Amino acid sequence: MKIAIIGRGNVATHLIKALLPHYQVVPVNPRTLEDFPADADLALISVSDSAIISVAERLNGFKGIVAHTSGSTPMTVLAESVDDYGVFYPLQTFSKDVALDYAELPFFIEGSSERVSEVLRSVASSVSEKVYDADSDKRRTLHIASVFACNYVNHMLAIADELLKQKSLDISVLRPLIGETIRKVDKVSPRQAQTGPAVRRDQVIIDSHIAMLADNPRLAEIYRLLAQSIQD
Amino acid sequence: MKIAIIGRGNVATHLIKALLPHYQVVPVNPRTLEDFPADADLALISVSDSAIISVAERLNGFKGIVAHTSGSTPMTVLAESVDDYGVFYPLQTFSKDVALDYAELPFFIEGSSERVSEVLRSVASSVSEKVYDADSDKRRTLHIASVFACNYVNHMLAIADELLKQKSLDISVLRPLIGETIRKVDKVSPRQAQTGPAVRRDQVIIDSHIAMLADNPRLAEIYRLLAQSIQD
Repeated sequence: MKIAIIGRGNVATHLIKALLPHYQVVPVNPRTLEDFPADADLALISVSDSAIISVAERLNGFKGIVAHTSGSTPMTVLAESVDDYGVFYPLQTFSKDVALDYAELPFFIEGSSERVSEVLRSVASSVSEKVYDADSDKRRTLHIASVFACNYVNHMLAIADELLKQKSLDISVLRPLIGETIRKVDKVSPRQAQTGPAVRRDQVIIDSHIAMLADNPRLAEIYRLLAQSIQD
Repeated sequence: MKIAIIGRGNVATHLIKALLPHYQVVPVNPRTLEDFPADADLALISVSDSAIISVAERLNGFKGIVAHTSGSTPMTVLAESVDDYGVFYPLQTFSKDVALDYAELPFFIEGSSERVSEVLRSVASSVSEKVYDADSDKRRTLHIASVFACNYVNHMLAIADELLKQKSLDISVLRPLIGETIRKVDKVSPRQAQTGPAVRRDQVIIDSHIAMLADNPRLAEIYRLLAQSIQD
């Protein structure tokens, strides 16, 4: 089986590495498509969401399956361009230079037909034990949930890091705290696991923290809004 | 050495468990103080921040060291009540029913004299390998940073959990993503590790996510504010 991977970003880079041990993989430049193997069985479009349609349009006439790898783009954007299409969505935070255990990488699959779904499932299963079906609606929810659980969690850590640096403290002192915060999710729901001044309604501390952030109004606003949200 | 632990909350409960193997520990009801052992060497006040001063006042005449366990309360609130005082701040998220590896528990110590600091350091060191000095200013920063790195990280997970539940999805599918998000902090700074639509400035996705949250204006506002903060 021959798989073309169209893209040069973080996701494409990792998909190439993940699939290379199992298939004939052809990396394709998304701008030119010059290396595109017309005899491929599967083309994975792994480009920014806004570029998916234009790449798909240029695959017009391709006889294989075309799947995109996006969380928030409906499968049907591919319907105009090709007969057999689907979605091959790996749910992870990809950085080019950070190695990943692909066996733990969850894939969410959708196909324009059961045959397409089966092919995509089988490709995902060659890499990972965590392969699920998800239609475009579920996938969209997975994506927005992962913005909170990954991108915004990371941003909270970035804010902590900055606050600590201002006092010459290193975020490594928070490692046990961060580790425990995440471990708790395996034992109790995040709502039950909530601790801190907001859930205790300790308004004296909340106000003093907001006052400490007065020189950074956006940060003070984030603190205030999240404290309120926890108390709702 | 005899240690009185005044408090019945999450922190007090864990401190009792952590110190019990090493010292004679006497749990004390903070409301009545009736069990307070006047011959204790050290009294740890582990109550809500707003109750610390009133507990300390009632220890007037006590000859041992008095330390509170709060991140955001200055050490000096104890100066009026006793001669030897300090802070014994364990930086962790404590839930009564969740067991902890106390050897990994960071303690931040401050003392009214070098002798007091040494006693507090030695008590902390009996439990943990991670014992640091921190004055009230540094400790306040550690506390606010831990609100972001723990309480607000947990709240992001609670939001993700709720969004997934609405589509009958379980947060366990995000476990590899959450694990990787945290692991990255050991390799690159959180700022470098940032991924997602906000840092990619993918306004189409950002707008579509905010539209998805339209029935929950506070959540939409959190999404918007954090996307903006990442882009700053």
